[in-house]
Amino acid sequence: MATATALSQRAYGLSAPNPNVGCILVAEGKTVGRGWTQPAGRPHAEAMALAAAGARARGATAYVTLEPCAHASPRGPCCADALIDAGVARVVVALQDPDPRTDGRGIARLREAGVEVDTGVGADAARAAMAPWWSRATRGRPFVTLKLATSLDGCIARADGTSRWITGARARAHAHLERARHEGIVAGRGTLDADAPRLDVRLAGLEARAPRRYLLTRGMAPDGWTALSAPDADPGVDSLLVEGGAGAASAFLAADRVDRLLLYRAPILIGDGKSALGDIGLADLAAAHGRWRLVDSRMLGSDRLDVYERVRKE
Amino acid sequence: MATATALSQRAYGLSAPNPNVGCILVAEGKTVGRGWTQPAGRPHAEAMALAAAGARARGATAYVTLEPCAHASPRGPCCADALIDAGVARVVVALQDPDPRTDGRGIARLREAGVEVDTGVGADAARAAMAPWWSRATRGRPFVTLKLATSLDGCIARADGTSRWITGARARAHAHLERARHEGIVAGRGTLDADAPRLDVRLAGLEARAPRRYLLTRGMAPDGWTALSAPDADPGVDSLLVEGGAGAASAFLAADRVDRLLLYRAPILIGDGKSALGDIGLADLAAAHGRWRLVDSRMLGSDRLDVYERVRKE
Repeated sequence: MATATALSQRAYGLSAPNPNVGCILVAEGKTVGRGWTQPAGRPHAEAMALAAAGARARGATAYVTLEPCAHASPRGPCCADALIDAGVARVVVALQDPDPRTDGRGIARLREAGVEVDTGVGADAARAAMAPWWSRATRGRPFVTLKLATSLDGCIARADGTSRWITGARARAHAHLERARHEGIVAGRGTLDADAPRLDVRLAGLEARAPRRYLLTRGMAPDGWTALSAPDADPGVDSLLVEGGAGAASAFLAADRVDRLLLYRAPILIGDGKSALGDIGLADLAAAHGRWRLVDSRMLGSDRLDVYERVRKE
Repeated sequence: MATATALSQRAYGLSAPNPNVGCILVAEGKTVGRGWTQPAGRPHAEAMALAAAGARARGATAYVTLEPCAHASPRGPCCADALIDAGVARVVVALQDPDPRTDGRGIARLREAGVEVDTGVGADAARAAMAPWWSRATRGRPFVTLKLATSLDGCIARADGTSRWITGARARAHAHLERARHEGIVAGRGTLDADAPRLDVRLAGLEARAPRRYLLTRGMAPDGWTALSAPDADPGVDSLLVEGGAGAASAFLAADRVDRLLLYRAPILIGDGKSALGDIGLADLAAAHGRWRLVDSRMLGSDRLDVYERVRKE
């Protein structure tokens, strides 16, 4: 399932409106087919893996990160039927599809056809790998990531606004890669006026992956920007990256709309600089605890990236 | 030498005015004696190891973190002679003693007596293990550590001054252990007036290790405190821990008197709180880079401790 989850990442940010799913077919200890959701959502991962396997799919085991769909579409047959028709003997599923058109029907159809089905294998990793689609499907809203790049003392700029550069080249390249993985990116009015940020993707080969730019404002947005009236307004995309200033960051945190934190931290002290955040509506210190769980930590040159996820009771 | 350096840590903060030295004696692959500087500086590490080894010292190799002393004292014979008299065949030394009374004379005396001597082995680690004494011996001033305990966004308190608690129990216990390892601890006037901090050691068995308390002030200090007029004034101790407020921290940083940073960071966001630092006299962002090197990083419960050392051209 770890391999299928890794394959699902190839479709991350590219498969909307469909989930980014990964699938491998294994027969007699060998991988006979691999697939992942193709751009714009079709073919599905299972169809791609079955096409690769051909006749070797008969008797094989499929590992797939999301329940195979049970609803036929003008764009293709349903995956449960395709797996049955190919003679797959066993299907291991990470997550049941929350889409009401499937929601267990794919698994039921497989079992009715005599296919052995196991579920829940590697579910947390698979869910994290399709966090934007999962957020939209289960909560009706985008998965929101807040990016902060600070000094050790938590400054995002000097008092005069200077912020080039706090983090080094590797951290900045990583941040551009995160932009490329998002459908939308948000800045606040103050940042737009002060910095006129491009918020584009300056990585060779990924320039076309620049996300839509949203301006958090109750007013109009300038050309090239889409107005977002509030942190809980629906931008229509499934993944949002908030990186434009303390105002936008604080507004999303105060509305409890941040699901993931990317903290890039440079080994420098600034002192007396601009704080990363303004008022986030914290009642007291006790309320601040238990909200964030460290899920990844790595060095990028001499900078550190820590990734935290919001702990929510489901 | 790693073992000798570890032994030297048993004397850390206890051996003043003498260096905290560690020594092991090895004969035929077996440790026959171990020693470290005893409280208040005598006996020396070599004397303790030789006493433990007895006749087994003959032909043995001594590993010692600092050059054996060459000056006899009313409190004991010099260690170079003691090693020679015991018949030690070889001495491996991490660091040459910068004390002008020795400064190579110990090594010379050993070699004249036919003892094989190697130097420079594990020097960096041995120097770090005796950083306070080394700072006093080579720079005539204490080794200064700045402790900061912050949220992810770099706050040391809420806007109303509330700071209990940002970090968890394990991080706070570690910070108390660091207090016990220091001879002096510094707070600023604002912190004294606002928080009346005790700055004592609240760890079972270590209560007696509370460091002397210094108040950074040009005026008088209250009972139980010693006035320190400036960050570069000599407190007369070899290790200082700065942990009392943004004012004291910024003053020591602006004077470039901080040698080590202890950053305890809790996985919480505060927003709109008190910053860890005020003005530290930074000319521009470029000047902030290249000053701090990460030397240790560990989790303490859900908090992270990062330790940085000031990079100085020697």
